Amino acid sequence: MIDHRTLRVALLGAGSVGSQVARLLREHGDDFAERSGARLELAGILVRDLDAPRDVDLPRELLTTDAESLIVGADIVIELMGGIEPARTHILTALNSGADVVTGNKALLAQHGPEIFDAADQVGASVSYEAAVAGAIPIIRPLKDSLAGDRIVRIFGIVNGSTNFILDKMDREGLSAEDAQRLATDLGYLEADPTLDLEGYDAAQKAAILASLAFHTEVSMDDVHREGIESITADMIEGARRAGFVIKLLAICERLADADGEAISVRVYPALISREHPLATVHGGNNAVFVEGEAAGPLMFYGAGAGGVQTASAVLGDVVSAARRHIAGGVGVGESARQSLPTAEIGRISTRYQITLEVSDEQGVLAVIAGILNDGGVSAATVEQTVDDEGTARIVIGTHRAREQALGDTVARLAESDVVVRVASVLRVEGE
Amino acid sequence: MIDHRTLRVALLGAGSVGSQVARLLREHGDDFAERSGARLELAGILVRDLDAPRDVDLPRELLTTDAESLIVGADIVIELMGGIEPARTHILTALNSGADVVTGNKALLAQHGPEIFDAADQVGASVSYEAAVAGAIPIIRPLKDSLAGDRIVRIFGIVNGSTNFILDKMDREGLSAEDAQRLATDLGYLEADPTLDLEGYDAAQKAAILASLAFHTEVSMDDVHREGIESITADMIEGARRAGFVIKLLAICERLADADGEAISVRVYPALISREHPLATVHGGNNAVFVEGEAAGPLMFYGAGAGGVQTASAVLGDVVSAARRHIAGGVGVGESARQSLPTAEIGRISTRYQITLEVSDEQGVLAVIAGILNDGGVSAATVEQTVDDEGTARIVIGTHRAREQALGDTVARLAESDVVVRVASVLRVEGE
Repeated sequence: MIDHRTLRVALLGAGSVGSQVARLLREHGDDFAERSGARLELAGILVRDLDAPRDVDLPRELLTTDAESLIVGADIVIELMGGIEPARTHILTALNSGADVVTGNKALLAQHGPEIFDAADQVGASVSYEAAVAGAIPIIRPLKDSLAGDRIVRIFGIVNGSTNFILDKMDREGLSAEDAQRLATDLGYLEADPTLDLEGYDAAQKAAILASLAFHTEVSMDDVHREGIESITADMIEGARRAGFVIKLLAICERLADADGEAISVRVYPALISREHPLATVHGGNNAVFVEGEAAGPLMFYGAGAGGVQTASAVLGDVVSAARRHIAGGVGVGESARQSLPTAEIGRISTRYQITLEVSDEQGVLAVIAGILNDGGVSAATVEQTVDDEGTARIVIGTHRAREQALGDTVARLAESDVVVRVASVLRVEGE
Repeated sequence: MIDHRTLRVALLGAGSVGSQVARLLREHGDDFAERSGARLELAGILVRDLDAPRDVDLPRELLTTDAESLIVGADIVIELMGGIEPARTHILTALNSGADVVTGNKALLAQHGPEIFDAADQVGASVSYEAAVAGAIPIIRPLKDSLAGDRIVRIFGIVNGSTNFILDKMDREGLSAEDAQRLATDLGYLEADPTLDLEGYDAAQKAAILASLAFHTEVSMDDVHREGIESITADMIEGARRAGFVIKLLAICERLADADGEAISVRVYPALISREHPLATVHGGNNAVFVEGEAAGPLMFYGAGAGGVQTASAVLGDVVSAARRHIAGGVGVGESARQSLPTAEIGRISTRYQITLEVSDEQGVLAVIAGILNDGGVSAATVEQTVDDEGTARIVIGTHRAREQALGDTVARLAESDVVVRVASVLRVEGE
């Protein structure tokens, strides 16, 4: 047996991920020693309540409520408490006392990333956060290391498991939005307050983190255009299905280069995806992210988007890397904001759209609508007119690629038209 | 502009990947400086013939046939010559003179990996080889770093683009094996000597590299059970389609734990995959690899499996990492053979099988066959009997999971039976 150096590991938080990290660190001590070149000693676990029930049996003597004494003196600090404070203060304390930090805190990074990365650069320590985006799936490190020699053009994918679970249940089992949400809550996919997931905040935090990394630009939550799945109905899902689509909540990070110069667009919204597209086969709580490199072309990363033990795998990968760096010496690879690209307004993006209108059932409706589209500079690729059993006439328009600004103006004019009863839905079509 | 240190980069080989690496290094010099923290100076390019035609215009003064003077004095050596010698000697020279090495040479690593990794460990240099497996797809680094805190249970996927192209054309366009091969040759998917691809050697080399890394065990080509796609006919593809399957050439690396103890199985063969399985949707020359971590669960990595510029992306990611290490100091993360697990014989694996028999068209055939299966300890999940237009009677048996040894013995007994005219095919069913 090689005589390994010992590194002190402080764990902040013992929730579903933290307790699994603690268990694996303790159960596979020899393995981690071999992999990292250092014996990883779990020095203590910061908890709010020493007597709270936990997923995993943790030795009482490791639990503490005293953050300061646990953090100072640690070589590696794993932050899995979530939330902004006191997580932010603890991480800054850890970095200032020379520890490497591993965190899964997307809310914190999306809001205070630059401050934390600066603090790490000052002392040459590393901040790793593979667990913050897409659970178990290695996506941060591939972007940071594997694709460091390429230029990322676009990232798009499914990064929120809860909403994917809901949309998938609606699509595959015909559940109503309410029933699918209730099921998601019962199965633990949704928190007691489901707003973060349903309204797209969680996905937007992850999009901000991915865009920052991919485009070497500081991107915060305020830069992300965000629409959730609150307005998605069973009818819209069924309509999508009939047209060969499935509705997915997508996070999209994209470089734009148009007459207004170079910019980035970071956005989260539910969109139509062809059922032939690989993202259409991402079921349940899984995540999948496409990364398009200028040289590499499209790459896809797929796996479990959440789950205690799955996410623990991502945390521990970061821990082993931090330990190797600690042993080998050298400074961590810092974040880079050297490009500082401006964020484009949503009006500047261009994509395809599907517009569903309820119209009055009379002669000449189509001509009126075609005229409005034409005046707005929006070109229709497909137009389908239907009358349902209740006598409601609908027109479904699939557009060619159009600029969001032009599309929005045109939809407003359609809504004002006498022949249009109601704009039933406007959905973007992505992945083409 | 930050004043960067300059690192001398030697490029060995200027084929389809090498010439793209040279182009990108020269065109995006400032980018690479920012990403790696060092200015990467392309010191020279080793070629066999100074006057050979190339995919990319390369400045004549960079080309050289003098390996020794190019390599000694370089900080990073990129080996993209392929083949065993002189690539092996050049890499050892580079390591011994203190350079970090980046290579895409799967044949060399599958045969001389341990020697090369030992040489790197001796001097604390790094050997990176993301481009050796699955082209542009980041798979080596995720295994080495991202999943370093997990225990890999199984890897399986499509790692040879040429054979996937051929099987895909046969499946989707109904081409014969000969026509699909001819098309693959015309489009540059197959080399003049297609044996390496068609007989599974290329996939086996990649499987050996993946298994070595995943299981911390030295795995060479001799440890890989290898079957190619030579015997796959249009009939077999069509039969698979009717039964809801597609045939893919799979590389499988697996931990076994049975009564005979812990071992690994590394194998390459064409197998049936359900059309519902994500691997069934991998078309053309693309690659996709599933990695199953004990904690992470199944992860999938998908993208271009070959192509000059795509593979250059993987090479350059390694170059940036090597440059960072050079600047930051510290030693590279070495390979590990600490587990040294034995390799299991193919007879020890267990999977499901589909057996197609031509039988005599008479009463009681099924009973005879069922008896042989039963005696052999092979349990049938489905049995389908058909008679085609020419009056040939066939029985297609889908087995439950069985041990390969038992299956092989049983098939031999079936072949000897009076009621069996011919064993038309035996295919494994994977991904379930």
